[in-house]
Amino acid sequence: MTDTVPTQTMMRATLQAYVDLTNAGDAAGLVALFAPNATIEDPVGSPIKQASEFAAWFGDSVAFGARITPVAPIRGSHGNAAALAFDVEFTPPGIERLRIRSLDVCTFDGAGKITSLRAYWGPQDVEPAHR
Amino acid sequence: MTDTVPTQTMMRATLQAYVDLTNAGDAAGLVALFAPNATIEDPVGSPIKQASEFAAWFGDSVAFGARITPVAPIRGSHGNAAALAFDVEFTPPGIERLRIRSLDVCTFDGAGKITSLRAYWGPQDVEPAHR
Repeated sequence: MTDTVPTQTMMRATLQAYVDLTNAGDAAGLVALFAPNATIEDPVGSPIKQASEFAAWFGDSVAFGARITPVAPIRGSHGNAAALAFDVEFTPPGIERLRIRSLDVCTFDGAGKITSLRAYWGPQDVEPAHR
Repeated sequence: MTDTVPTQTMMRATLQAYVDLTNAGDAAGLVALFAPNATIEDPVGSPIKQASEFAAWFGDSVAFGARITPVAPIRGSHGNAAALAFDVEFTPPGIERLRIRSLDVCTFDGAGKITSLRAYWGPQDVEPAHR
């Protein structure tokens, strides 16, 4: 991690890679998008995951066939943050395929690695994927 | 402000009111959506505005003819936060009408009033509205 500020282009590229690697089922690639001390809060209001838990987290995501569809262009900021609104479909074990209307807000280090990811979705944002 | 947690329905109603009051040009109504100690950071990375500054802020918004178009359903959370992705068009003094691709993340008190608003948009998210 560096103390410099990431560029808008770097942050957008990392978020686009997050989409592409999810849809390619590349858990190791997803973990590599994060800085060593990064945290994930998904959904906001749930326990925060540390970097040591990311491999299992993204392994599950891939195992559940997660597929992300962005619903609007990535938003930047005038700081070290960017955001992506998307729908994600996945199939948890023993449950029908689900769709969550979600929205990730991330901060980034100077190398463009994600330092925090917070996912905004609530109980009312989950529905069967076939709907 | 109360210490209780806002419901998902309350947060969504407040964000929908934020859209509707903006589009109705109701600056006083917008100010009334916020808790007394609320803050606005718009865009993220710019100086934070205190509640005493909101009347002038939303007065400008109305004077500039701001119109919001949501681009996806409001997202809730499992805590006291919700988010809205939208495009906003407005006409700053002496400048052509602009469109910003923005995204607001808000926290709420137990009465459903906004306690913080952070708007994610960067230099690359602004374009002429006619485009």
